[in-house]
Amino acid sequence: MDWPGRERMNRLLAVARGEEPADLVLVNGRVADLFGRRLMETEVAVSQGRIVGFGDYRARKRINLQGGILAPSFIDGHIHIESTLLTPPELARVIVPWGTGGLAADPHEIANVAGVEGISYMLEAAKGLPLDILFLAPPCVPACPLETSGAVLEAAQLEPLARNPRIAGLAEVMNFPGTAAGDPGLLDKIELFRDKVIDGHAPLLSGKQLNAYILTGPGSDHECSTLEEGREKLSKGQWIMVRQGSTCRNMEALAPLITTATSRRMMLVTDDSHPDDLLERGHLNYNLARAVGLGVAPLTALQMATLNPAEYFRLEGRGAVAPGYRANLVVLEDLENFRPLMVFHAGELAAREGEYLSGGDGAPPAPPEGLTRTMNAAPFGLEDLAIPARSGKCRVIGLNPGEVLTDQLLMKPTVKEGRVAADPGRDLAKLVVIERHKASGNLGLGLIRGFGLKCGAIASSVAHDAHNLIGAGVFDPDLLLALKRIEEMGGGLAVAVDGDIKAELELPLAGLMSLAGGREVAAGLKRLHRAARDLGCPSDPFMALSFLALAVIPSLKLTDRGLVDVTRMELVKLFKV
Amino acid sequence: MDWPGRERMNRLLAVARGEEPADLVLVNGRVADLFGRRLMETEVAVSQGRIVGFGDYRARKRINLQGGILAPSFIDGHIHIESTLLTPPELARVIVPWGTGGLAADPHEIANVAGVEGISYMLEAAKGLPLDILFLAPPCVPACPLETSGAVLEAAQLEPLARNPRIAGLAEVMNFPGTAAGDPGLLDKIELFRDKVIDGHAPLLSGKQLNAYILTGPGSDHECSTLEEGREKLSKGQWIMVRQGSTCRNMEALAPLITTATSRRMMLVTDDSHPDDLLERGHLNYNLARAVGLGVAPLTALQMATLNPAEYFRLEGRGAVAPGYRANLVVLEDLENFRPLMVFHAGELAAREGEYLSGGDGAPPAPPEGLTRTMNAAPFGLEDLAIPARSGKCRVIGLNPGEVLTDQLLMKPTVKEGRVAADPGRDLAKLVVIERHKASGNLGLGLIRGFGLKCGAIASSVAHDAHNLIGAGVFDPDLLLALKRIEEMGGGLAVAVDGDIKAELELPLAGLMSLAGGREVAAGLKRLHRAARDLGCPSDPFMALSFLALAVIPSLKLTDRGLVDVTRMELVKLFKV
Repeated sequence: MDWPGRERMNRLLAVARGEEPADLVLVNGRVADLFGRRLMETEVAVSQGRIVGFGDYRARKRINLQGGILAPSFIDGHIHIESTLLTPPELARVIVPWGTGGLAADPHEIANVAGVEGISYMLEAAKGLPLDILFLAPPCVPACPLETSGAVLEAAQLEPLARNPRIAGLAEVMNFPGTAAGDPGLLDKIELFRDKVIDGHAPLLSGKQLNAYILTGPGSDHECSTLEEGREKLSKGQWIMVRQGSTCRNMEALAPLITTATSRRMMLVTDDSHPDDLLERGHLNYNLARAVGLGVAPLTALQMATLNPAEYFRLEGRGAVAPGYRANLVVLEDLENFRPLMVFHAGELAAREGEYLSGGDGAPPAPPEGLTRTMNAAPFGLEDLAIPARSGKCRVIGLNPGEVLTDQLLMKPTVKEGRVAADPGRDLAKLVVIERHKASGNLGLGLIRGFGLKCGAIASSVAHDAHNLIGAGVFDPDLLLALKRIEEMGGGLAVAVDGDIKAELELPLAGLMSLAGGREVAAGLKRLHRAARDLGCPSDPFMALSFLALAVIPSLKLTDRGLVDVTRMELVKLFKV
Repeated sequence: MDWPGRERMNRLLAVARGEEPADLVLVNGRVADLFGRRLMETEVAVSQGRIVGFGDYRARKRINLQGGILAPSFIDGHIHIESTLLTPPELARVIVPWGTGGLAADPHEIANVAGVEGISYMLEAAKGLPLDILFLAPPCVPACPLETSGAVLEAAQLEPLARNPRIAGLAEVMNFPGTAAGDPGLLDKIELFRDKVIDGHAPLLSGKQLNAYILTGPGSDHECSTLEEGREKLSKGQWIMVRQGSTCRNMEALAPLITTATSRRMMLVTDDSHPDDLLERGHLNYNLARAVGLGVAPLTALQMATLNPAEYFRLEGRGAVAPGYRANLVVLEDLENFRPLMVFHAGELAAREGEYLSGGDGAPPAPPEGLTRTMNAAPFGLEDLAIPARSGKCRVIGLNPGEVLTDQLLMKPTVKEGRVAADPGRDLAKLVVIERHKASGNLGLGLIRGFGLKCGAIASSVAHDAHNLIGAGVFDPDLLLALKRIEEMGGGLAVAVDGDIKAELELPLAGLMSLAGGREVAAGLKRLHRAARDLGCPSDPFMALSFLALAVIPSLKLTDRGLVDVTRMELVKLFKV
């Protein structure tokens, strides 16, 4: 249990018995009873940040909930904070007003750039917020052996994290082929965390390989993109994290799997979200409304964003409204839109009607210099972006809107002056990934179809998971310009066309995060999206771009070392002979 | 996770991938998928006692399940093994063929007689069986301060148990008034087990006192006897153990609370069962059939006897059929009668068609002498059973069939020769409890109504929880005879009438358990029941008798120190002036 210490327990008991007044009583609300599955009309007493009981209690303060629904605040079971481009304090400012009270964060983005130093910064930056952030230790840094990251985490580096009580477990075990094959280094890492939570990541894995993968320990999966995939993993004992973020949107496909009878091991998670989405549509409140819109029973949806993640992550006294539970609460207007009217954290009002009320100034702690000077690419120029033509067809990365899974296409390239050229007419753009941690000079080149670029280029220092420099363009000089600008900014995002930078956003923290606030970052991102749209790109091309180097998600990806056939986990040449 | 060690893991992986043959493949069964809530037609491969996967696998041995349903074997979340009158090996012989694979046992009966030595014997006797027995450390020995037990367990005695990995947590915290009041000794014990499971026991507790009780930690309750009681405790976050044993039968009252939406924190348990019931109707298979008969969905019922207790007791890799889970399995004829066709424990066939197939001879380990010489009452005679008459009404214990809750009645006694007399015409019998551990000479006398005795007496050394000598009779010389016979036997049960012992059963182990097998003990018990029925008693009067000294269940009980008003937790006189 979540033991508060003897003295606090004695005081809580005096309040519970009605002998001492509570700190706070919430009246005129309907309590979402996630165990008995009903709405209860009862007053709720809070003391020392905990719920002490239901009933008629005296209190120092009473708050009228005006008929709103009192629910546990939401817990996102799988998020990469870095993908929001915000530091933890700035992220809290954005998502706490939406009703979020807890996150299980995998800091593998910053870990790929800066190793344990990066993780330590995130732990530090997460302190003292009205948002409980659990961290998990990333086992796959780098995500795969066919790329160059800024840091490598072996079992020896993870060992102190396994003993750290603030680390809830092992983050997504992404190298599923290696894991199923019994790779000793991966099993070393899993064994370190055998008494904690172990997250899985095995897109499209099934049958015997999935049996083997699950045997090693991963207890969850957030990569299910089809109903059948979700059903198989659920039946094999994995907790299914139904993901709906800025790019990956699996909820519609998985909604038929979610019933009151099957949902106890399912959660709503976001994985990767951009700050503009978080500011505009919200965080899990959006996912909840979407789930209910797709036919999920409201209290089932609510369990998936509260009680279920609390059970999965073994969070005692979290995820429900009951005696002894932490008073991490949200007051909802209804169970249809899930609009939060008030948010409490440990019994303190943390937001009201969208306004963040946290006491502190919320500024992120100053990052150490090692985390703000992370751009270290070898010199590169226009000639490095050229692809000499050969005979035969090219392997082309085929994009799928709303998914991070890519197709492997075979297409005859457009050739100009002996070189493979981008061809907006065929929606073919050039993709480049430049190693930016160790000045190795590694540079991968490829082609993508479905990105929409008609002219110019976009580039970024956010490129999962090694976060090398990535750019896509249909005109090499613009591509070079955008890449160079990011190098100059010390990390960020940029759009270039006709020899000009049209929009940019500085991301000085590990080349991944801004130190500014959510509104500023979202505004910058909007400018970038507008500029990219002018070039023909669909919505949020930076999120899509950032996944094109992630060689643990099928089928064809590009890293600094070249094209990767993910299914076979091997480098392949652009030209298939 | 349930980590098997590296070498075993590598071998399991080779089997899961299909590279090595499995030890066993179960074919032609329908797998009860308790996560996806369906029956799956798939083969199941087992290796090293674990399920390695679903699918088409090679194996050294194949067993045809003939269309039976493959489910996890059952786990009883709350049982007192001592109440079965059998040692753990003999109990396994009875209940494993019924499909039981796990128990969470509270050894507080033997602990009241023999303290930690008694618990240690139970731990020893539970080893090597095809039945996983978890033990919990009893916090309330004695159950209440108003009785005399053979041993007292303070926090100092429990501390080594809290560190023992075979002890899953703290057993039922029965002193609920003391707990809600913040009794320091009780909180000391709870704090020792704060990282483990803590079981509750709070019959009829509600409102603010229940809030306070729950705050201290008890996470379950098996005492709910009404729908409203179950609903309140469930909504306040307790796991509800729906009890159906030989005497306490709460299932019918609680069945309306059990729905697919509410059942995740509910379990089926037996608490106290006699061996004849276990042999004749079964164990949890009976409770499952009963639940389904009362309208509970079959897979919901099955979860309540498998997955739910596994989750509550934090048993990783137990309670479901999935890769990595222990192959503790039962093959059921159907999901209506739940008749077990085969039972597997750690992948080995442990029973088939009711026949127990365990390799060992199953004999219990020889108990140390301290556990077989536990009858130590001060001398007592006929005169000690006399109750001098006074004016006014008597407090009478009113029995309720099928419940352990008693009523407190006020009745004018029948008086003969200046003494209060039993009166079969009014269904009034005399009740006596004699301290039998320390020869203190304590002797409590009272009256019960509703026991049915027309003549003679019955007596027992099983009397929850202090297990003093208890007897009920309508003729003092027969009552004395029965009590004396139990003393001579070193513990047991007896029926006496007309100056003769009509039936008896020896319980030499702590005065609680036989060292004989289940069939022999059940036969002896049947003889006793028949003899008692000849005296007018309803079925299983010994179980009913054994609860009449349990002063933690309302309302009126009798201990060696006298009548106890349980609600006020104080001694009261027989005559109310």
